[in-house]
Amino acid sequence: MKKILNISILGAGNVATHLARVLSARPEVHIQQMYNRHIKALSTFENSIEIIDDLSKLKSVDIIIISITDDAISNFSKQLSHLSSLVVHTSGSVSIDALQVKRKGVFYPFQTFSKAKKRMDFKEIPILIEANNKQDLNLLENLGKLVSDKVLHLDSKQRKALHIAGVFVANFVNHLYVQANKILKDNSLSFDLLKPLIQEVTQKITVLPPEKAQTGPAARGNQKIIQQHLEFLQDKNQKEIYKLLSESILSSYHTNKKIIADEKK
Amino acid sequence: MKKILNISILGAGNVATHLARVLSARPEVHIQQMYNRHIKALSTFENSIEIIDDLSKLKSVDIIIISITDDAISNFSKQLSHLSSLVVHTSGSVSIDALQVKRKGVFYPFQTFSKAKKRMDFKEIPILIEANNKQDLNLLENLGKLVSDKVLHLDSKQRKALHIAGVFVANFVNHLYVQANKILKDNSLSFDLLKPLIQEVTQKITVLPPEKAQTGPAARGNQKIIQQHLEFLQDKNQKEIYKLLSESILSSYHTNKKIIADEKK
Repeated sequence: MKKILNISILGAGNVATHLARVLSARPEVHIQQMYNRHIKALSTFENSIEIIDDLSKLKSVDIIIISITDDAISNFSKQLSHLSSLVVHTSGSVSIDALQVKRKGVFYPFQTFSKAKKRMDFKEIPILIEANNKQDLNLLENLGKLVSDKVLHLDSKQRKALHIAGVFVANFVNHLYVQANKILKDNSLSFDLLKPLIQEVTQKITVLPPEKAQTGPAARGNQKIIQQHLEFLQDKNQKEIYKLLSESILSSYHTNKKIIADEKK
Repeated sequence: MKKILNISILGAGNVATHLARVLSARPEVHIQQMYNRHIKALSTFENSIEIIDDLSKLKSVDIIIISITDDAISNFSKQLSHLSSLVVHTSGSVSIDALQVKRKGVFYPFQTFSKAKKRMDFKEIPILIEANNKQDLNLLENLGKLVSDKVLHLDSKQRKALHIAGVFVANFVNHLYVQANKILKDNSLSFDLLKPLIQEVTQKITVLPPEKAQTGPAARGNQKIIQQHLEFLQDKNQKEIYKLLSESILSSYHTNKKIIADEKK
């Protein structure tokens, strides 16, 4: 008979909520308790899970998952220093050593979560784990594999690199969508016009490495178009973004090419 | 009985090839001729379409589509100045007036095309048309609607704005994928780890405007994480991109916030 994993989840944010949902659906997991300062934030779970707002009521379990804001993790964990449970956080940016507990680890699901979206397909979400000994690592691997097909052991430096890469492809990419939307709005055009292009760009990198998928004026070294575009853009910020990214592309594909004509103005 | 549209396509690039494929599949269209300096580049069409390498052999048709490199369009079109056919180019960046012909127009399919991908779903691809009179506009609209559900009349300024927005969401976004891939490679991690996140980001903007979909350290105003990330990045170019885009996000969501700590180093 397979052992049931007893876990508790501390926090009521997006990651805590999504983890509670997906883990509570697994017969191999028992969520012992969920904690938040404000019990109300966890009311969706009150019929199935014991909700507490007092850490002194925390029971001993196999794994305690702290899923709170990065800056608070270290201080918060002090209150668990007396427990023998494995205590993990779920952050991409916080070192394992920030946890001030006996047995520490990291359980980082690499995805952007929002409360609006009730169900996520966890199978495809990479879960990056870290622990200080083989036994704890196995425990986290077992937990991870219950929900995801991609459980990987990453050290804190690799996890930070992955988080930063995620900022580039998620946060920065979305900001480029925001800027594009502004450019369109200024010209009475709808963002919907961009959606088939966006889909195609995303689809392309599933079959080609991004270096081979690069297209556009800068990749072709077409300075004339780049200049025309820079002249068209009135927003200083958009100009700077256009210039920096075009130069970065130019320097990848064409030696010694810089956007210089813009300086003349 | 519906009139058959007689068209010819000049060029052998990605757009010319994809247009020839999708248009030749329509019973309402007859592709009279295709032209290229090097006949060999059009050999895939030689069994179904007359291929020429001599413009003097060009017959009169309803619409002639010039799909060649931007810079060459204007001069090339001079060779068609004696024809009474409607002559259109397929470029996002070139003005309609660059065409030196009697009847001019633009037929711009807004998508990134690659030869590797044989079939594209044209139905979803916006086709932006422009002409100098109602009759020619109708002609282009009829042609466009045979392959796409989204045929729109845009003037040259709007078309340029759309093209620039496309550079942001396609070329620049792909370059961020390239940079993220470098960061991962430097830390022995695979680009595959990013794919579920990339899919989710793209999916989000189909249900939310990008302004509402923004997440990440800069959107949260978390200067501490931004500083940590800037310290982690060793590549000067990646640092600059990270800084500029984070500042741009910060200024959208938080008044008077600038990344200043980085200057101290």
